[in-house]
Amino acid sequence: MPNPTAAMLVIGDEILSGRTRDGNTHHLAGELTRHGIRLAEARVVPDEAPAIIAAVNALRATWDHVFTSGGIGPTHDDITADAIAAAFGVPIGIREDARARLAAHYARAGLEFNEARQRMARIPDGAGLIDNPVSTAPGFTIGNVHVMAGVPNIFQAMVASVLPTLTGGAPLLSQSWRVNRGEGEVAAPFGALAAEYPDLSMGSYPFLQNGAHGTNLVIRGTDPARIDAAMTRLAALFPAD
Amino acid sequence: MPNPTAAMLVIGDEILSGRTRDGNTHHLAGELTRHGIRLAEARVVPDEAPAIIAAVNALRATWDHVFTSGGIGPTHDDITADAIAAAFGVPIGIREDARARLAAHYARAGLEFNEARQRMARIPDGAGLIDNPVSTAPGFTIGNVHVMAGVPNIFQAMVASVLPTLTGGAPLLSQSWRVNRGEGEVAAPFGALAAEYPDLSMGSYPFLQNGAHGTNLVIRGTDPARIDAAMTRLAALFPAD
Repeated sequence: MPNPTAAMLVIGDEILSGRTRDGNTHHLAGELTRHGIRLAEARVVPDEAPAIIAAVNALRATWDHVFTSGGIGPTHDDITADAIAAAFGVPIGIREDARARLAAHYARAGLEFNEARQRMARIPDGAGLIDNPVSTAPGFTIGNVHVMAGVPNIFQAMVASVLPTLTGGAPLLSQSWRVNRGEGEVAAPFGALAAEYPDLSMGSYPFLQNGAHGTNLVIRGTDPARIDAAMTRLAALFPAD
Repeated sequence: MPNPTAAMLVIGDEILSGRTRDGNTHHLAGELTRHGIRLAEARVVPDEAPAIIAAVNALRATWDHVFTSGGIGPTHDDITADAIAAAFGVPIGIREDARARLAAHYARAGLEFNEARQRMARIPDGAGLIDNPVSTAPGFTIGNVHVMAGVPNIFQAMVASVLPTLTGGAPLLSQSWRVNRGEGEVAAPFGALAAEYPDLSMGSYPFLQNGAHGTNLVIRGTDPARIDAAMTRLAALFPAD
């Protein structure tokens, strides 16, 4: 059975302006791989409703799961929840259980639960909440779309609570073999080996270290025995120095 | 006149599997912003021709420029040049000036200019070459698409040689104001200010430092006088402690 697929959608002007370097995609990629879900595509769009709506609708129609990060805070540029509701064509409003969680949180902190903070309880109709153990304001799941915070530690906590609820596939395994030669010298035998193992994915990643060229050869797949067999061949082709 | 727009397309299984964290998008974002070109979208796709072709054709039809990174090396998984040729519907073959550059490079290095390395001289018909001062194998520009290496220092060198050839717009400026209060407390006045300056883009980015909540407020635009005016208002709304 093929592995389930997923897409990541990063929402935020600050990524596209170069102010902030996105790390959430890299985190999600590693977690999905361990869970046996194949990250098939990632996109970054600005804080603009038409861009968010178009991307969400394209991605949710194509892949099994969509994960979003960013735009669910209390300020005027936090428009993700409304854009998701528009993408699904459902109403959105303050949701009582989310409001109650936030009210209790701000009461404990001795802070006013003002109108801006109440905005974080706006959840599209029909969504399920995703816990936020860091700062309470929840994410949500609607259809196959999981809407999460952009702040990295909150994003990571939300991923950790969503992933166990999803059916994964066989873990996506990889092994790596380091060769002290340039890519151009390993290309022909490595390509021939890849052609013999069409069920595996093989990639080569050149590096330059202390002035010497080298290449990391990576074999990916779901069948450990096949990967081991290919790695044995690889080690014979390119013996360690 | 509005600023020219651009998209980034990262090509590589290693990004989607979580093996490698993409940094080329962040680098390009900063360089484009300084050059007055607005990065409007970014995507990551695997080393698969249909995915590359679909993304390139969608992005080049939508934005003024498209920058790609990855997949132009000598190995079997380096399929970007062929996919770009297919996207444009043009032939591709070994190009003499690119071949000559590579032949001279490998002769100097005392390395065989083998078939795999000659693959790096495969350039779609009608493209212009992009210099590679690091390892010679060129990138290329075809139409509004700039095809560059994935290795970060080569990508950066290629961006540096392409950008001066593109017409930029007014530099995209930003100023930032740090407030020692949570986002929920600054949201209402900050949103009201943003509504007064529809020509500027205002974003808020919460942080947690030593257990205390704070928010960075960022104002972006192209008119320095308007940004200064808005910053003065911001400083009056949220005086430094």
